[in-house]
Amino acid sequence: MNDPAPPSSSPPDRRAVDALDAADPLAPFRDRFVVADPGRIYLDGNSLGRLSVDVRDALVAAADDWGARVVEGWPDWIELPARVGDRLAAVALGARPGEVLVADSVTVNLYKLAHAAADRRAGPIVTDAGNFPTDRYVLEGVARQRGRAYVEAPTVEAAVEAAAGGILVLSLVDYRTGTLLDLEAVTRATDALVIWDLCHAAGAVEVDLAAAELAVGCTYKYLNAGPGAPAFLYARRDLQPSLGSPIHGWFGRRDQFGMGPGYDPADGIERFLAGTPSILGIRALDASLGIIEEAGIGEIAARARSLTDLCIRLADAWLAPHGVEVLTPRDPSRRGAHVALRHPDAWPIARALIERAGVVPDFRPPDVLRLGFSPLTTSFADVWDGLDRLRGLLEDGAYHEVDTAARRVT
Amino acid sequence: MNDPAPPSSSPPDRRAVDALDAADPLAPFRDRFVVADPGRIYLDGNSLGRLSVDVRDALVAAADDWGARVVEGWPDWIELPARVGDRLAAVALGARPGEVLVADSVTVNLYKLAHAAADRRAGPIVTDAGNFPTDRYVLEGVARQRGRAYVEAPTVEAAVEAAAGGILVLSLVDYRTGTLLDLEAVTRATDALVIWDLCHAAGAVEVDLAAAELAVGCTYKYLNAGPGAPAFLYARRDLQPSLGSPIHGWFGRRDQFGMGPGYDPADGIERFLAGTPSILGIRALDASLGIIEEAGIGEIAARARSLTDLCIRLADAWLAPHGVEVLTPRDPSRRGAHVALRHPDAWPIARALIERAGVVPDFRPPDVLRLGFSPLTTSFADVWDGLDRLRGLLEDGAYHEVDTAARRVT
Repeated sequence: MNDPAPPSSSPPDRRAVDALDAADPLAPFRDRFVVADPGRIYLDGNSLGRLSVDVRDALVAAADDWGARVVEGWPDWIELPARVGDRLAAVALGARPGEVLVADSVTVNLYKLAHAAADRRAGPIVTDAGNFPTDRYVLEGVARQRGRAYVEAPTVEAAVEAAAGGILVLSLVDYRTGTLLDLEAVTRATDALVIWDLCHAAGAVEVDLAAAELAVGCTYKYLNAGPGAPAFLYARRDLQPSLGSPIHGWFGRRDQFGMGPGYDPADGIERFLAGTPSILGIRALDASLGIIEEAGIGEIAARARSLTDLCIRLADAWLAPHGVEVLTPRDPSRRGAHVALRHPDAWPIARALIERAGVVPDFRPPDVLRLGFSPLTTSFADVWDGLDRLRGLLEDGAYHEVDTAARRVT
Repeated sequence: MNDPAPPSSSPPDRRAVDALDAADPLAPFRDRFVVADPGRIYLDGNSLGRLSVDVRDALVAAADDWGARVVEGWPDWIELPARVGDRLAAVALGARPGEVLVADSVTVNLYKLAHAAADRRAGPIVTDAGNFPTDRYVLEGVARQRGRAYVEAPTVEAAVEAAAGGILVLSLVDYRTGTLLDLEAVTRATDALVIWDLCHAAGAVEVDLAAAELAVGCTYKYLNAGPGAPAFLYARRDLQPSLGSPIHGWFGRRDQFGMGPGYDPADGIERFLAGTPSILGIRALDASLGIIEEAGIGEIAARARSLTDLCIRLADAWLAPHGVEVLTPRDPSRRGAHVALRHPDAWPIARALIERAGVVPDFRPPDVLRLGFSPLTTSFADVWDGLDRLRGLLEDGAYHEVDTAARRVT
């Protein structure tokens, strides 16, 4: 997956890194987020993004709006899944109005789209074995329910090949390696109906869904909307009339409040709504999208490339001698905003970073240390200091002493 | 459904009603809730409950906890769906630890349980035609997916009969008439696997799930957890090993963070989790349950009976002469916390109450005005004044002049 040779230039010193931060037009956005412990270096925004002041304010305002209007707020709230979906589409996904909905979880949304796709394609349901666990589990279940072959191909390339005539589910950014696929090229290369998982891409890279048919993604990573914030679902406009959700909920029904007999799906993307959406969660996302919009997804993605570039250069210079391998593509156009480092002791190293070094990374089994560089909340100094502390741990070997029995829950 | 004759005693005067409020041990709980406009009488807590100060504080605390701990909060948060489920079970449902989960929406949870039930029973999927729309839509869809007969029986009694050998879905409290079924008697009367919809029951009446097999419900009505707050799901402990969710998500998998190949459901109720649950939503519910716990569900249910009794007596005395019919059972042990009034002009009357009389009811097609008496937030004076304003509208006929083109979204 990664390029063979690591010929990266020698890394900058700490002063040069401070200069990078000083010159960065996005640097002021860091002040929009809550940082409780400035001494702790947070490199896990790829798992859970930070709370912004805007989102905190929006949550309070949403609660107060509920308090003030109670049920009379619904005429406004009812529009939120589609309205904030439109904003998300424009701000971060390159999709058009009426193509994105904010609701439910990624798992539930993928379940809906996989069934909808299975109504249109008779072939196998295919993903790559390296895809995110919930995607694999959902697809295996849907394939069984629909009597279809389920294929977990060893690589993305093999998955594209195996999916001919069927349904292909791929993560645009791989959750472990950080590899960013070429959405347009994959779409052109297959006649399968492709569902994109954008969890590790949305808010980190420029996504252009114009070439895509179906997609899902979460909002709690680079979109900073909070733990368990509502997910999103995309279906290209022209496909919508031919797609049906397997979950026939009242929010997806035409003339919902007519409450009439029988299920008749709504015309647009709303047919993929199910139950009552989380109004507070959607309003939190809306506020967070305001920040993304201000910063600009192009600027954000460029900063992600620079942050990950710095990480890779430091890893080559400082960590490779200790047996650390960079799994993430060196071509910045082929990666997201996180970097995967392979080391046989990745788990104790991750624990030691958290417990002893004040650095928060995450770990992906069996041997990957994952460092996320959420573009709006990570500084170049964070990258440098985080890698420096990691270098220190590898040099003194103290990570061998940590308690590795800690329960892993992220 | 309702008893033939309305022999209710003559209603108290306004002073006697104030005395009822003064003597009520639950009256002080009203001050725990936000009331933005004290002149507006809110009789729609059966649709959306009010914001409490505790819930507002909990939302802020949950946001700040996210801000402070970011991903390091997950070791605590991961327990919330089951832990708050246990609290809900104890406080309001008469269920045991490990039997209730807080997650997703009612629609999605019913979808899961209907599929799980269809794995165990070969017969038809049955509900009554008067059941809540999303239940009917979901079940119709599941029946089609599973190749089962779907029966919408004209009455609950006919549904019980039709469900022999199959799956029966009933609302414990009917969303229109307010009729409270006898859970134990229904369960004894059928060999069907019964799924109870507790949306209009939880927090309004004493529910005893000991006799029940499966159930779902929402938390945004009488449990006051906010618009779109996470729903709940109940499965009796001994049945859990034989039940599987159709949605194979990572949160429902054994050893979730092992992220291994293949889906293997978790042992307990957690197997019905799907994607990442809304942490802020669950924490809001947790705070609201604290209030329910303090007040006591027995006291709350008793107050609901008294409030609805007052409503029915006033309706008999004041509204019946104007053609209003009480659809709700007069036996207090057979109703929930709302009262249904039938009138051919129910829709313009509902609009006039909202726009001209400062009373917030809701409307259920075709001709039902629904008045909800959320026990912790509705006073006896609210009932008296609300009915008095309704009487005024009926007397002067001014409801004929309102704009009935308003979009109905609750």
